[in-house]
Amino acid sequence: MCVLGLGLIGGSILRATHDAGRRVWGWNRSADAIAGAADDGYDVGTDLTAALTRAADEDALIVIAVPMPAVDSVLQAIAEHAPAAPITDVVSVKAEVAAAVAARGLQARYVGGHPMAGTNHSGWSATDPALFADAVWVVSTDPGVDADVWVRVAQLALDCGSVVVPAGSIEHDSAVARISHLPHLLAEALAIVGAAGGPLALGLAAGSFRDGTRVASSAPNLVRAMTEGNATALRNALDEALHALTTAREKLNENSTETLVDAGHAARLQYEQHQRFDITDVTPGEPGWRENLQDAGRRGGVVRQIRSASPG
Amino acid sequence: MCVLGLGLIGGSILRATHDAGRRVWGWNRSADAIAGAADDGYDVGTDLTAALTRAADEDALIVIAVPMPAVDSVLQAIAEHAPAAPITDVVSVKAEVAAAVAARGLQARYVGGHPMAGTNHSGWSATDPALFADAVWVVSTDPGVDADVWVRVAQLALDCGSVVVPAGSIEHDSAVARISHLPHLLAEALAIVGAAGGPLALGLAAGSFRDGTRVASSAPNLVRAMTEGNATALRNALDEALHALTTAREKLNENSTETLVDAGHAARLQYEQHQRFDITDVTPGEPGWRENLQDAGRRGGVVRQIRSASPG
Repeated sequence: MCVLGLGLIGGSILRATHDAGRRVWGWNRSADAIAGAADDGYDVGTDLTAALTRAADEDALIVIAVPMPAVDSVLQAIAEHAPAAPITDVVSVKAEVAAAVAARGLQARYVGGHPMAGTNHSGWSATDPALFADAVWVVSTDPGVDADVWVRVAQLALDCGSVVVPAGSIEHDSAVARISHLPHLLAEALAIVGAAGGPLALGLAAGSFRDGTRVASSAPNLVRAMTEGNATALRNALDEALHALTTAREKLNENSTETLVDAGHAARLQYEQHQRFDITDVTPGEPGWRENLQDAGRRGGVVRQIRSASPG
Repeated sequence: MCVLGLGLIGGSILRATHDAGRRVWGWNRSADAIAGAADDGYDVGTDLTAALTRAADEDALIVIAVPMPAVDSVLQAIAEHAPAAPITDVVSVKAEVAAAVAARGLQARYVGGHPMAGTNHSGWSATDPALFADAVWVVSTDPGVDADVWVRVAQLALDCGSVVVPAGSIEHDSAVARISHLPHLLAEALAIVGAAGGPLALGLAAGSFRDGTRVASSAPNLVRAMTEGNATALRNALDEALHALTTAREKLNENSTETLVDAGHAARLQYEQHQRFDITDVTPGEPGWRENLQDAGRRGGVVRQIRSASPG
């Protein structure tokens, strides 16, 4: 396995898969960033061509773990040095990466991924082989994904201790806009309105304000990268929120918050009562496997163990 | 002291002031609700006229601790049986109570209050003499408040272990709309948009969604009572939030979240860095005392000890 980019996510994957007994090597553009990894004895370097040539020779799974703005230059290098190698990525948006992969003609061997794990710290010292333990790791079920590559990417997630959620890129982006990026926008707005009340309001603030604004303390550049990277899906989620709040504003003219409060309470209950189920009846490669996985993922299914059609 | 209404707040005040060595009795409409208080040896009953006649005889501070819809009938009884007794209340909105008090001609002896303490449980078994420890307790600085009554109400808050935040009724209602009622509306909207993403979205939800929707799990009738009771101020706060989010939606067309994220982050920092200061230079009754307290409260000041102008 070849991990490109050794930040928090890439570095943690290098460590987790190494601990799981996989042969893995890593590349990072900057030598400074991997000094810690080299000191710890990991097989890392700054020569991208060498890393990719080796990946091509060994049919290694390439894991793209660089930030979105750097993805295309890495794809260009892959197209040149390892065009037949299986590829995945860990970028937090999926449709944009899939489009970049297709633009380089690499889609036949690409299956996107997204481990839902914390990203608030950075650098080798923050890497943790247990970062993905019990996390959910989305693995793409877009049309055209190759069953063998899908199994390899899913196995990577399982080796890291995660459960696999099968989902299409667009559905993934819509889901994370709703449950991860919209919360940031609402937290920022709440913080703004609270602080506009001055020291009196801030001095009266208690749990509901503290919790509702918590993620507004995240570094602005990280929040911007996250939300702007998923702008298309986030626009739709924000429009839905604006619709709910604008309707509530009209009802507030009649002094009622019933519609919003009842619907919001029911929705929160749905979240609290959400239960995953294990997908055990789909074998990648069999007819309809991709659609079946995607449908199960949509209903809350996760993969904890790979069923393989191939005898080896 | 005479506490009218022995729910969570009233019952806890009865217990806290009793523990502080005050002579205190309580009234509640329903006998069932105070059986526990009577069993525990507290001086409680269901005869409102008797409780108020005694308050008039002893010049006791009357604490109105019934829900907003029951406030006016209690005020009517006070006007009949104890029209000269000092009055305060613990209702979570202040302008509406002040208006009801004025409508009964009781404003000369009334100073509103609002202890900012939890209300998610109810009944005598939930009461706690330590409920108000280290809480903030808003005490009204509306035009016309009597200095002696103000001191008695502030002393009640201090006896319960709280610090006193001086504020006008309208400023209070605006502040709690911003930091307590708006968070509920945003949490409900976020829960709705998240759940609309179905099991896939709910299964990917992590900390930001969990925290951002936490208060949506509060009982809908409590959230409605809170938000609808402060509808006027809440409309303004919601309009400010809608303005911030609508502007952000326009910027999102250009794929930027910079304006919202930077302002939200700065606002959250203001909240995290908010520091109270002690108001030590205002003596109730001296010229300008009310305006000085109100101004200090606006700047984040709290009263921890009462300075009294009277020699006794």
